Amino acid sequence: MKTYLFTPGPVSVPEEVLLQMAKPIIHHRTKEFENIFSEVRDGLKYVYETEKEVFILAASGTGAMEGAVVNTLSRGDKVLVVNGGKFGERWGKISRNYGLEVIEEKVEWGYSADPTKIEDHLNRDKDIKAVLMQASETSTGVMHPTKEISEITKKRDDVILIVDGITGVCVFPLPFDEYGIDVLVAGSQKAFMLPPGLSFAAMSDKAWKFYEKSDLPKFYFDFKSCLKNAEKNTTAFTPAVSLIIGLAQVLRNFRNEGLENIYNRHDKLALATREAMKAIGLEGFVKGTPSTALNVTYAPEHIGAKKIISGLSDDFGIIVAGGQDHAKGKIFRMSHIGYIDRADTIGVISAIESVLKNLGHEFEFGAGTRTASEILRNM
Amino acid sequence: MKTYLFTPGPVSVPEEVLLQMAKPIIHHRTKEFENIFSEVRDGLKYVYETEKEVFILAASGTGAMEGAVVNTLSRGDKVLVVNGGKFGERWGKISRNYGLEVIEEKVEWGYSADPTKIEDHLNRDKDIKAVLMQASETSTGVMHPTKEISEITKKRDDVILIVDGITGVCVFPLPFDEYGIDVLVAGSQKAFMLPPGLSFAAMSDKAWKFYEKSDLPKFYFDFKSCLKNAEKNTTAFTPAVSLIIGLAQVLRNFRNEGLENIYNRHDKLALATREAMKAIGLEGFVKGTPSTALNVTYAPEHIGAKKIISGLSDDFGIIVAGGQDHAKGKIFRMSHIGYIDRADTIGVISAIESVLKNLGHEFEFGAGTRTASEILRNM
Repeated sequence: MKTYLFTPGPVSVPEEVLLQMAKPIIHHRTKEFENIFSEVRDGLKYVYETEKEVFILAASGTGAMEGAVVNTLSRGDKVLVVNGGKFGERWGKISRNYGLEVIEEKVEWGYSADPTKIEDHLNRDKDIKAVLMQASETSTGVMHPTKEISEITKKRDDVILIVDGITGVCVFPLPFDEYGIDVLVAGSQKAFMLPPGLSFAAMSDKAWKFYEKSDLPKFYFDFKSCLKNAEKNTTAFTPAVSLIIGLAQVLRNFRNEGLENIYNRHDKLALATREAMKAIGLEGFVKGTPSTALNVTYAPEHIGAKKIISGLSDDFGIIVAGGQDHAKGKIFRMSHIGYIDRADTIGVISAIESVLKNLGHEFEFGAGTRTASEILRNM
Repeated sequence: MKTYLFTPGPVSVPEEVLLQMAKPIIHHRTKEFENIFSEVRDGLKYVYETEKEVFILAASGTGAMEGAVVNTLSRGDKVLVVNGGKFGERWGKISRNYGLEVIEEKVEWGYSADPTKIEDHLNRDKDIKAVLMQASETSTGVMHPTKEISEITKKRDDVILIVDGITGVCVFPLPFDEYGIDVLVAGSQKAFMLPPGLSFAAMSDKAWKFYEKSDLPKFYFDFKSCLKNAEKNTTAFTPAVSLIIGLAQVLRNFRNEGLENIYNRHDKLALATREAMKAIGLEGFVKGTPSTALNVTYAPEHIGAKKIISGLSDDFGIIVAGGQDHAKGKIFRMSHIGYIDRADTIGVISAIESVLKNLGHEFEFGAGTRTASEILRNM
């Protein structure tokens, strides 16, 4: 049976990228690799919409999150963490592990953060040095208002905005320079359509000022050393050569597709899926703004998510993700990122309908695929 | 022109491993990946010769080195660093960045560390908490006496031995349990014949006692969290799935080859190259014990290393490494690790002879390949 990866990371990788990465390994201190590295640097600036350097780390996304913290903050600093899911929670854990004082803006799972509450925190407490948030919270399928929050932090010289864009960058607009984000983190195994193992980070001028004062210990994730080496088209430590070669191919493809089209692709796949789920009588988990990286849907209560997930996997070879913590068994999460397009998405919606029918859910069979097809027809 | 990668990392990867890694990505929270992960755990224990867990990090070797430090030591701790090259120097940098007090046992480049001097340090200064060393110092081609030093640290409850085995593990014997090493680090892009992007680490019981008292901040490289997750055949953060799938194939090959044969392969290739270089009148850089991971040779003074390295690259497509720091321009470094065997090694020796002949070095043409062939004939 053919397998379809519809999890919000890892994702399917285009065949041509897999083959690029399967080519014989080249050394990283060669002209050939320097040229690829230079091309990749430009490509990353293109997708980050920035003039700043975008660092490439041999680490998964969490490594870059840790990097964002250790390169900007100091022991005892107070930070405000937007915690509306598993990844928001992770900002808190990283910060506490490094001896920061964490204030949490708790957001109910499924809801988006309220920018006015962030502003209230900052007005109330002048000691807050950074706001840490997710552009897209992958555990709940929610988009947080990065633009609105950046407008609050941009006005302040003494507060930086650290954004986990791991399921945001290359999914929906997060123009680094225009928004005035201070640190933006991304990861290869998401919209970049690559295997896991690389993560990315950019730093604003304000963030570099914080770097100068930062006393948190760092070595492997030291962004200054990343910057110095990147400018010479190399890395401080052995880079993940094969993944970077794959990245070069992906970024070439992205230039051809164009950022507008990339964002539109995710928008449309997300909208079509959302409307299809409604059409077959399923309730969306997201009450706030939905992320266009993935769709999160409640399973019918009498069926539960586990049976849907295993039905998709066993009968159709389709892998989707379940819920975490208190959402476990209640929801399933289906991705719009990676090497998937309209036909794949319709195929998964059809499979969801079939599985639900077999499990006794009552709905108009075919309504999901019809609804989605109508939305995707003229994409 | 065909390219031959003879650098001491990255190295060539077997075609079958490249193709395994080019297969469609699978999700890391699936039975399929769990089975691979479980197989890989066993395979890593086999090559580490240990009953302990060997952690898999999505990071290059330096990440695991940093992990070794932050998981065992505490701010202000005094450590003894064996510094006989660029990688020894790195132990010092990492340690200082984390606020440790570093005492260096400086070893002249090209020489092996003297265990009695290590013992003297430990006798003299009871505050030393750890000895940090390279099993094989890649910048100089030297092997340090891990076994002898481990016998010194093993007797002491209050001192751990942290070994960078990045060009040691799977090259020559470093039996983790038998030697009583406390933390042993390795990396994928060396003898493991994989692309860069993975590193490994194991911890002894004594190291775990140090962990409990360690106050250095850690998150991405927290070995406790690695351990907990590994026991469930998973990782705390998204693993580098494709590299781990490649690793499974490599470890299968290693079981078939057998540890004795693996060590013997490196021994013989190293010996043959060393003797061949002598036979063509070149002086070895190593005055201590040579590492069998690579061969480091002085270029004839009137020629210099740069011309040899570019001759090999331009005329033969053979990539070898130069020297670093004060050895730059004086030496060239040729690897015995990675997917290379006897015929490749003879081919490179022949190319070195041709390049030297063209550059006006006087020697008996053919003496190098003859000498090496004689050694490798009945390997």
